Amino acid sequence: MTLLRSNSKLVDRIEADLAELRADLGARKPTELYDPVGYVLESRGKRLRPLLVHLVSRSLGASYETASPVAQGVEVFHAFTLVHDDVMDNAATRRGRQTVHTKWDLSTAILAGDLLLGLSYELVSRVPHELLPRVMSTFGVMVARLCEGQTADMTFEKRGDVALDEYLRMIDRKTGALLECCFCLGGILGGGSDEVVAALGEAGIELGRAFQIQDDLLDLVATDPKWGKKIGGDLIEGKKAYLLLAALD
Amino acid sequence: MTLLRSNSKLVDRIEADLAELRADLGARKPTELYDPVGYVLESRGKRLRPLLVHLVSRSLGASYETASPVAQGVEVFHAFTLVHDDVMDNAATRRGRQTVHTKWDLSTAILAGDLLLGLSYELVSRVPHELLPRVMSTFGVMVARLCEGQTADMTFEKRGDVALDEYLRMIDRKTGALLECCFCLGGILGGGSDEVVAALGEAGIELGRAFQIQDDLLDLVATDPKWGKKIGGDLIEGKKAYLLLAALD
Repeated sequence: MTLLRSNSKLVDRIEADLAELRADLGARKPTELYDPVGYVLESRGKRLRPLLVHLVSRSLGASYETASPVAQGVEVFHAFTLVHDDVMDNAATRRGRQTVHTKWDLSTAILAGDLLLGLSYELVSRVPHELLPRVMSTFGVMVARLCEGQTADMTFEKRGDVALDEYLRMIDRKTGALLECCFCLGGILGGGSDEVVAALGEAGIELGRAFQIQDDLLDLVATDPKWGKKIGGDLIEGKKAYLLLAALD
Repeated sequence: MTLLRSNSKLVDRIEADLAELRADLGARKPTELYDPVGYVLESRGKRLRPLLVHLVSRSLGASYETASPVAQGVEVFHAFTLVHDDVMDNAATRRGRQTVHTKWDLSTAILAGDLLLGLSYELVSRVPHELLPRVMSTFGVMVARLCEGQTADMTFEKRGDVALDEYLRMIDRKTGALLECCFCLGGILGGGSDEVVAALGEAGIELGRAFQIQDDLLDLVATDPKWGKKIGGDLIEGKKAYLLLAALD
């Protein structure tokens, strides 16, 4: 992704922050909880979400240091969703590594996810005090939307009659809400007005749709082994996807 | 419990607040998520935790209205712990009703728990803005401690050599941390100094120990069908309890 390549120094800095966070967590006890938490955060994802927080906040004049805890918080939140989603999807691997409930067990995956969710709140709270009410409210709305979207996604698997606009509404929650939140938090950190923050949020929702449709497409046609999932896996499992629904529409 | 009987009007008011919260949640969609969430909050527990928030904050001069969202938040948080703990403990019933993962399924229980955890943060954030940083930090510390305590409890089940002080440290996290948090939040809402809030927290920890030892004892000798669990169940499952460890000590 061009966005990532053209910001490789910023991504390196984000990685360094996350390494420091892992070192801090690695010193906490019990290890039965913090080992799996560290394991999840070790997985080298694209770091797209913290990157968005930094890019947007910087464009509005906020310093890297001001944005850094929030950027870590959205990545930790993303990690939480992966751990619990993998349990629900019964996924044995992710990005070529064993999932937490496979490497440890179900209880560990539930608790590690819960800890990550709490930690994400702790991190996004580390903002100048006058920004905290807006940050908390934006983050809280996102958390609820994401749970709603994940529920809808699972419900759709059992249904044959999902309409395209229902699908897009689900995607706006399951994938879009967190990207929207990253844009909004970047805007709040940069001191943006409510109008600016709302417009940024819209951009996040659009990015979420593009992202999910690309993901659905890759499920059908990916040839790169880095994709790391079974080709057509979603289709076989009855997961609804844009192309399928558009074809049926 | 005398505390509950002598405050029955306050408990009624707390019940009314929670009924309003349930009505609000009941109007949200998808119902596949909010039905189980409402079901959990419907269960008539003792409401001890919101009661503590109200009693402590009132004793320091805060109004009922100021404390109400926080009081609801700690009850919602408690509900979150029950839903996820029941999955981990493989419990089919609680207080004579089916648990969420039994009545629905595992994924629903995970998601309903996640939603409740997020909702608890949303509710405890509804405080005068100048109190928000202290509230968030107190609540965040508690969430991590609780996950640590639950992990330690599960680890202890597999071990034969748990010492009494290790057990008490676990209880201070698993049971004490939330009660400590209720006392501290009450103190913060009432405008208490750091010293006052710390002293209140200590009282919460002590109450947690008393509470857990009583629970361990009831596991062995309860005769009241309202207890709702199998007598000696914890002992049979290898759960560590104060009396057992004191006897082995």
